[in-house]
Parts: sequence; structure tokens; C-alpha cells
Amino acid sequence: MEAKEQDVSLGANKFPERQPIGTAAQSQDEPKDYQEPPPAPLFEPSELTSWSFYRAGIAEFVATFLFLYITILTVMGVNRAPNKCASVGIQGIAWAFGGMIFALVYCTAGISGGHINPAVTFGLFLARKLSLTRAVFYIVMQCLGAICGAGVVKGFEGKNLYGTYGGGANKVNDGYTKGDGLGAEIVGTFILVYTVFSATDAKRNARDSHVPILAPLPIGFAVFLVHLATIPITGTGINPARSLGAAIIFNKHDGWHEHWVFWVGPFIGAALAALYHVVVIRAIPFKSK
Amino acid sequence: MEAKEQDVSLGANKFPERQPIGTAAQSQDEPKDYQEPPPAPLFEPSELTSWSFYRAGIAEFVATFLFLYITILTVMGVNRAPNKCASVGIQGIAWAFGGMIFALVYCTAGISGGHINPAVTFGLFLARKLSLTRAVFYIVMQCLGAICGAGVVKGFEGKNLYGTYGGGANKVNDGYTKGDGLGAEIVGTFILVYTVFSATDAKRNARDSHVPILAPLPIGFAVFLVHLATIPITGTGINPARSLGAAIIFNKHDGWHEHWVFWVGPFIGAALAALYHVVVIRAIPFKSK
Amino acid sequence: MEAKEQDVSLGANKFPERQPIGTAAQSQDEPKDYQEPPPAPLFEPSELTSWSFYRAGIAEFVATFLFLYITILTVMGVNRAPNKCASVGIQGIAWAFGGMIFALVYCTAGISGGHINPAVTFGLFLARKLSLTRAVFYIVMQCLGAICGAGVVKGFEGKNLYGTYGGGANKVNDGYTKGDGLGAEIVGTFILVYTVFSATDAKRNARDSHVPILAPLPIGFAVFLVHLATIPITGTGINPARSLGAAIIFNKHDGWHEHWVFWVGPFIGAALAALYHVVVIRAIPFKSK
Amino acid sequence: MEAKEQDVSLGANKFPERQPIGTAAQSQDEPKDYQEPPPAPLFEPSELTSWSFYRAGIAEFVATFLFLYITILTVMGVNRAPNKCASVGIQGIAWAFGGMIFALVYCTAGISGGHINPAVTFGLFLARKLSLTRAVFYIVMQCLGAICGAGVVKGFEGKNLYGTYGGGANKVNDGYTKGDGLGAEIVGTFILVYTVFSATDAKRNARDSHVPILAPLPIGFAVFLVHLATIPITGTGINPARSLGAAIIFNKHDGWHEHWVFWVGPFIGAALAALYHVVVIRAIPFKSK
Repeated sequence: MEAKEQDVSLGANKFPERQPIGTAAQSQDEPKDYQEPPPAPLFEPSELTSWSFYRAGIAEFVATFLFLYITILTVMGVNRAPNKCASVGIQGIAWAFGGMIFALVYCTAGISGGHINPAVTFGLFLARKLSLTRAVFYIVMQCLGAICGAGVVKGFEGKNLYGTYGGGANKVNDGYTKGDGLGAEIVGTFILVYTVFSATDAKRNARDSHVPILAPLPIGFAVFLVHLATIPITGTGINPARSLGAAIIFNKHDGWHEHWVFWVGPFIGAALAALYHVVVIRAIPFKSK
Repeated sequence: MEAKEQDVSLGANKFPERQPIGTAAQSQDEPKDYQEPPPAPLFEPSELTSWSFYRAGIAEFVATFLFLYITILTVMGVNRAPNKCASVGIQGIAWAFGGMIFALVYCTAGISGGHINPAVTFGLFLARKLSLTRAVFYIVMQCLGAICGAGVVKGFEGKNLYGTYGGGANKVNDGYTKGDGLGAEIVGTFILVYTVFSATDAKRNARDSHVPILAPLPIGFAVFLVHLATIPITGTGINPARSLGAAIIFNKHDGWHEHWVFWVGPFIGAALAALYHVVVIRAIPFKSK
Repeated sequence: MEAKEQDVSLGANKFPERQPIGTAAQSQDEPKDYQEPPPAPLFEPSELTSWSFYRAGIAEFVATFLFLYITILTVMGVNRAPNKCASVGIQGIAWAFGGMIFALVYCTAGISGGHINPAVTFGLFLARKLSLTRAVFYIVMQCLGAICGAGVVKGFEGKNLYGTYGGGANKVNDGYTKGDGLGAEIVGTFILVYTVFSATDAKRNARDSHVPILAPLPIGFAVFLVHLATIPITGTGINPARSLGAAIIFNKHDGWHEHWVFWVGPFIGAALAALYHVVVIRAIPFKSK
Repeated sequence: MEAKEQDVSLGANKFPERQPIGTAAQSQDEPKDYQEPPPAPLFEPSELTSWSFYRAGIAEFVATFLFLYITILTVMGVNRAPNKCASVGIQGIAWAFGGMIFALVYCTAGISGGHINPAVTFGLFLARKLSLTRAVFYIVMQCLGAICGAGVVKGFEGKNLYGTYGGGANKVNDGYTKGDGLGAEIVGTFILVYTVFSATDAKRNARDSHVPILAPLPIGFAVFLVHLATIPITGTGINPARSLGAAIIFNKHDGWHEHWVFWVGPFIGAALAALYHVVVIRAIPFKSK
């Protein structure tokens, strides 16, 4: 009970890790097998001279490009179909979003961390997992990738059809208020970023070295599930780059006048998830030094 | 064949683990690589003073909140759609339930065990995997989370629409008797809790240290599969917190008069699964001391 | 190149395992890290006095019971629905079959090997992975479980509706000949049993100790995929116990007069898969002694 | 910073691997735990006398045969259905393609590398992961397997129906130009081959020995996702063997006059993915010797 890495204890916890996962709470008495990494510095000048920094930015650009390309193309295919049954359907759209995040996080996790989403970058930045320099660079590259991805889809579909069928842009649908839309974005992004934190917990990694490899699956599923639930409300953003890319290429009033919802909502959701992870789950502020 | 940890033998079993999984029964001659944990005590006063106990309760609350939020929102989206093809469909509802359990068990397994379901808590309690104190605390937190989750969905959808479209509440559908509904809940919960036991078997853990990480997938699939089969019968409960949350927020006669089915059924199913696991699979009562 | 465990070589193969999976053929120069298990004896009297033998039979019974219960219930739900879009659809049926195999193989692999299918048992028996005694016992238990599972569904649905909607029984559909149906069963079962052999290859196990844990997923997917393709032809058997259970409970001429297709086809397919695995992939007959 | 295996550095990178995956870029300071394999020779005469070479070809033949059999049969089932809701739907087709790649890569990865696609073979050849001899042999076997697989489907469906319903052949659909189709094939194949490279990166393998086992899942998902997006445009090729097999068996003008798109597109996409992987991600050309 000295000043080592441990969870905050309201009292003594005498049970070592005798209960397997799925049956009870994890024990707190193996404090030595991992190391809480120190918070990332805000600015890390040396990053700017490293190839891996730029490579990570390129990987984020390419991943977000491919993400928008596949997902917006799927949305257009469903919207163009004479009837929904002759398309992959709304469920197919949800699979496209979730599945792409699964595959892309798998492919880019080792290069850039596999964010592909400014809200994820923001949440991880708040938890001090990456520097401000890197966070800003990632977000810029994500937005550029998203714009290019949506642009290619517009090129394939033609300007008229793209406009007619909504271009995959997010908006608050009829029957829902802006407050509903904002709430849906907040909770949806919370689920995504909470899953990202759970999957990449340093404590978990230390014990299960293969976790990083398995993490993309629940992260992709989180995206899929939020789409199942909130496509009827907002078309589901939870990714400001995705919303921005579609809005810029669509570029109609419909795509812009509620656009703030798809930045404010995800950033609030990501911040709440970071707060929940750091304060409740890891209890870092309460740790003995 | 002395008094060590071993399965009950009707006779000698001379074959060491020479057959890989998938081809034959597992051998019984490696009794040393795991340790049957002792049964959890009924009351464990020290738990009440440990932060991890309350953190586990908070995690169950948040997980059940998110579970109801996503699933009931998906149900409402399907029910509101002008035709089912323009929604994610009944299959999408099944994915929402199963997928959320997958993602949430993955996220909370290391914090609370990832029950998110009073029937699972009850089954694990019967197998003496957690204390009564903890079981009761979890069930209360799960029910509170479920009520809040369904409440948020009602807030988004509006009171009228929520009522019109059934609010995701469970009931025995026309064409089926209460007995059918009860039976469907019993067998459905049996499948879920049987999968939970199989995935978290201490014997299995000992040999395959990464099992806990993989366990959420079959558990989520079990929920998905039961929904595929029994949505037409009861809308599928197999989770009393989910049924209670939806019923309280829906709060019409339809939601209440058969509500007991969705507590009695899952608890019987969970008890049968615990019995099957402990008596048949692990043969604990017959073990030599 | 002496008489050790190695693949048959037409000539020298000079490249050690320098290419990762996905890029080239696996090398043949690590012959020491696994041990081809000796063929199982035809009769193994000691098995009959071991509790694990009977426990394995019970596990096969329960698993096949649950398999038929969920899948036939899903089929009935789709058939009863006023239109297919208001049900989980044909794709949902395919998920029910494949998903149950995934979950049940995961749960029972450590107890009985997780066959849940007489064709799988037959194929593994041909490859001498289990004794004749055990194979016959498994097949009997599987058939009994299937009959009970289908019976419970009939109980829920009522005798009239069950008969009207086909009871999930397999038959060769209009527009296809019996030869087509037999061919579809042969190739479909080949895919399933080939996946089972690939997933449980002793050579693979030796290098990747976690393979058995991951094996249920591709096995379940194989079942799912064969259903996607051949539901329009025969309703997809590839599992004689499943076909027998549904036929006995349905018990109309339609269910019986082509029933042999669903035993002969799967057994031929399983035999071909065993042959392909043993002769081509493992080249066991050509091995130097 | 001497001449050891390392990424090209524009400057110093001082941070060792202290950030887990998902949070930041991978460090570059563990250069010793893997070995970049030397490029495969163009011609490797000794291969031709090794049984494993021919076995790999047989495995590619069988896998591509099964791939075409299941997928084209699924396509035919959907096209024959009186309405799409009474079939597995377009989404079911996407699952058939992606799921079969998952299962078949899982089964054949240890035998042949699990290509099942001339574009994958071509991309890996460009990255010098296999010899030209082997690449040509694989492509020939894949094409033969594909032709046989499509032929069996034609046998089941009957010549007339097969012709009426398009035989699963790829063509650029109405409303899209050949340029759109070519672009869709290029980007789609890029996604697939990029995922293959990411999943089979030697650097990754060195640290996570179980990666090869998990690789089939994201690879299968990549195929699924590209189908979700581009079935409306070209029916989705991204696999010249699949396109060739269907075209030869369909053998109508529709199937042939744009057939070049389904060879040129995938080969360009695979080349771009190989370039991206080798130059940007691995930076092999810039490595210090």
C-alpha cells in the first residue's frame, strides 16, 4: 500500500486475482505489470523532424479518404436504388461505416494509432495520449482525406444525382429537434470513444499483449451499432471529418445550417468519455503518487 | 488419482491430451494447471469499503444505460419507418442487441465482469462466482441504468410516438400463449448464460490466457441469435433489466400485465444453465475432495 | 531428409520459413514442433467407463437441441411473417444457422469436440480422429437432440401452423433436380468439413496454440455461407441430424421422400473433405516412415 | 542510428514504444525483433520440384472453385427470387463474397498463402514476396478454379436461367461510365491489397505471432465492404479470376466487351497498394543499408 501504481482504495481489498473475467471485478493487487505512460507533452518539437510523424499523417489521410469513399458510395447506392430492398439497405450502410472503421483501424493502428476521426483524436488528446501538435496535424489530414473521399464519390455519381440523393451529408431529420440531434451525437460519440479507451487501456495491454490486435473489432462494432440506432435521427455523424467532407462536397444549405451539431456533439461526447475513463475507470486523479 | 482437482471418473481414462479440440473430448489428465476458485462468500463486508466495488456498480449502470439507449432507439427507428425495408429491419434490431452486448462486455469485463443483465448476475451468483452483496448491488444498478436509457429514448422520440410504437417493451405476441413466451425466455436465457459459463470457465482460462478477451464475441452472438429466433414471440427479453426499463418508461397495461414472464423466465433459464455447467460440465459435486 | 515427420517432397525445398503467411507457401523445414497424433482405435473399450465420454454425449445432445430450437424457430418466424421484410429475412435464417454453430462449437469444443453434426463426426472418424464407438454415440445423441429441438418449436408454433409453414424441413425445391440438390449438399458439406479440418490441423495447433479458440468463427462462417448460397436449392441441410429432426417432427411426405439426399450428400461431402485433407494437404499416405 | 534495419528518419525520434496502439504512432526503436525477408527471386527452379509448390497450386484451385461456387450461386439465388425481400438480398451477396474470402484465407493461408485472387498475387509479386514462377502458376490455377466453380453453378441453374439472370458476370452498370467502373475497381482493389499488406507485414508478425491467424477477418471484411459500395457500379470485380470465370461461363457480349476493366482495374489497384505499402508505410527504398 505504498506509493506505487494502484487504484484508489476506499479501504482494503484483500482478494487477489482469483476470479476470472466475466464473474467479478478485477483485482487491484497486481500493480507492477504495467506502467501508466506519462502524459504526452503539449508540444513535442522533435516529432516535426521525424518521418514517422508525417507517415502517420499520410496514413490518416488515406484511411479517412477510403472511409468516406466506401461509406458515401454505399449511401448513394441505397438512395439511388428504385426500392430499398433492391439495395444493401440501411443496415448495409451501418455495416459500411462500422466495417470500414474495423478494417482501417486494423490497418493503420501500427502507423498512426488508427484514429480516422477528429473526435477520437480529441478524446485521446484530452487524456494526454498524444501531443497537441500531433492532434492538430491528424485532424487536418482527416478532414482533407474526407473531402477528397466524398469528392471522388461525387465524381462517380455525377453532380445532379449526388445533389438529388443528399450526398451522404448529415442533418437532423424531420421529426427530431436540434437538441435530439445534438444528444444523439453526444451519446453516440461517447460510446465510440469509451470503446476506444477500453480497448487501448495500458493496464489491459500489459496483461494481454494481443489486445491491440483485437481492439479494432469492438471499435468497429461500436460505430456499426451507433449507426443502427441514430441513422433515423441525424444520419449519424460521430465523426466531424466525415460530416465536414460530405457537407463541403454536397455544399447546399441543408448540409450546412446544422453543421455545428456534428462538431459540437462529437467533441462533447469524446470529452465525456475521456472524463469517464480517466476519473471513474482509471481513477487517475485519486491515485497515490 | 489421488485427491487432486479432477473430473469425476467412472473409470480410468488413459488418453492424455493427444487430440486437438474439434476432434474429440478433452482429456482429464492435466489437473494441475488451474485452480477451481473457492466459492465466493455470501457477504463480503470488505467489498463495501473498496472503490472497485462502487466503480463496478457505476460501470454496470453506464453499460446498461447505453445498452437500452442504443437498442430501444433502434427498435423505435424500425417501428417508425414507413416500411421495414427503409429501416435496418428486424435483423438490424437483433444486431443492435447482440452487438451492444459484445461491445459492452468487451469494455466492462475488466471492471465489473460485464454482466449488464440481472439474469447473468443471478446465474453467476448461483454458481457462487460473486457475493450476494455484489449481486444485489449489480442488479439494482442495472435496473436503474435501463430505466434511464429507455427514458432518454422517450425524450428523443416524444411521448406520443413512443407510446404509439410500443416503446420497445416486451410482451407475448398474438398467436403465442404465455407458456410459449415463458418457455422462449427460459431457453433463450439458458443459451446466453450457458455461453457465459463456457466462455469464462476457470479451467479454460488456465490453458488459454487470452480467452477472456475473446469471450465477448460468442456471448454477443448468443444474444443476437436468441433475438433472431424469439423476437416474433416476445420481442425477446432474456434480460430483466432491459424488460423493466422499457416497461417503466412505456408504462401501459400492455407493458405490465405479462411483465412477470420476463423475470421468471430469465431467472429459471439462468438457474438451469448454472446447474448444467456445475453438475454436468464441471461435475463439481462429484469431485473427489 | 531422414525418416522424420515431413511432407512428401518431390525434390529439395531449400527455403526455411522466411515468408510470412499470406505471401507464400509454408515451409517444410520445421518438422519437430508437432506430432501427428496416432490414429484413434476403432473400438476403445476404456472410453465406455469414463465419465467424460458420457458427458461429451450429453453436450452433443444439448448443443444439437439448442441448434435446432433456435434455427427452426427463426425459419418459422420468417415463414409466418406477413411479408419477408417484416422478418429477419432469409439472410437472418443463414445467420441463425451459422451463428449457432459458431457459439455452440465455442461452448462445446472443450467437452466433446463440438461436432453438432453427424457429417462432421463422420469426416473426423474417417480421418481416424475419434473411435467408431464415440462416432456412433455422438451421431445418436445428435439425432435425439435435433428431434427434441424441433419438437419444442412445434410445441410453440402449434401443430397447424408448423405444418403449414413447412417446419423447417429440407427438400429439393422446385426448379432444381434431385441431382442438383445432392450436388449442393455434397459441395456444401465439403466446405464445412474442409474448414473444420483446416481449423483443427495438428500441425497448425502446434505453432499457434490459440487456434482452437479461434476455430469456431471460420467454422460458423462456413455454415452461414453455404446457407446463403443453397437455401434456394434445398433449404440447406449439410447436417443430417438437423434434416432428420425437422423431418421427423414435420412428418409429411414432402419431408421424407427426398430425405436420403440429406444423408448421402453430407456423408459424401465429408468423405471428400477428409480425403482432400489427408491426401493432398497433409499427404499422410506419402510420408516417409 | 547505424546501418541497421530501421525506418527512414528525417530526424531523431526519441520516444521508445511507450504509447499503446490506438493512441499514437508506433515507435521506431525496436529494430532487432524482426527481419525484413530478402526479396523472392524471379525464378526459383527448385520450387518446381517441390511437392508443396504443386500442393499450393491445388489449394488455390480448390479455394477459387469454392469461392465462385458459393458466390455465384448466391447471386443467382437473389436474381431468381420473385422479390429481393424473399432472398438474402444484395447485402447477402456482399456477405457471400467477403465471408468466403475470410473462410478460405483462413483455410489456405498455411498452404499457399491464401491469395484466391490474381490481383493479390500480382501485388505480392510486385513487393517481391513470391517468385514469378509461383505467381504465374497461382494465377493460372485461380482462373481454372473460377471457371470450374461458375460452370458448376450453371449446371445447377440450367443454361436458360443462368443466361437470363446474368450469370454473376461483371459489367459496368447503366448510369456509370467505363471510367467510373475502372476507378471503382482500382480503389476497391487498393483497399483489399492494402489490407492484405497490413495484415501480413513482417514487422507486425515479429511482434504479434498470432497476427497471421487473425488476418483473414479484416481481409474478408475488406472484400465485403467493397462489395457493399460498388455492387451498384460494376457488380464488383476486384478479382480478375472471379470476373473471368463468370464471363467465360456466361459467354455473352455483355460479359466480354468491358472485360478488360476487370483486369486492368484490379492490377492497377494492386500495384498502387504495393507502392503505398513499400514506399510510404515501410519506406524500404529509403532505408539505410
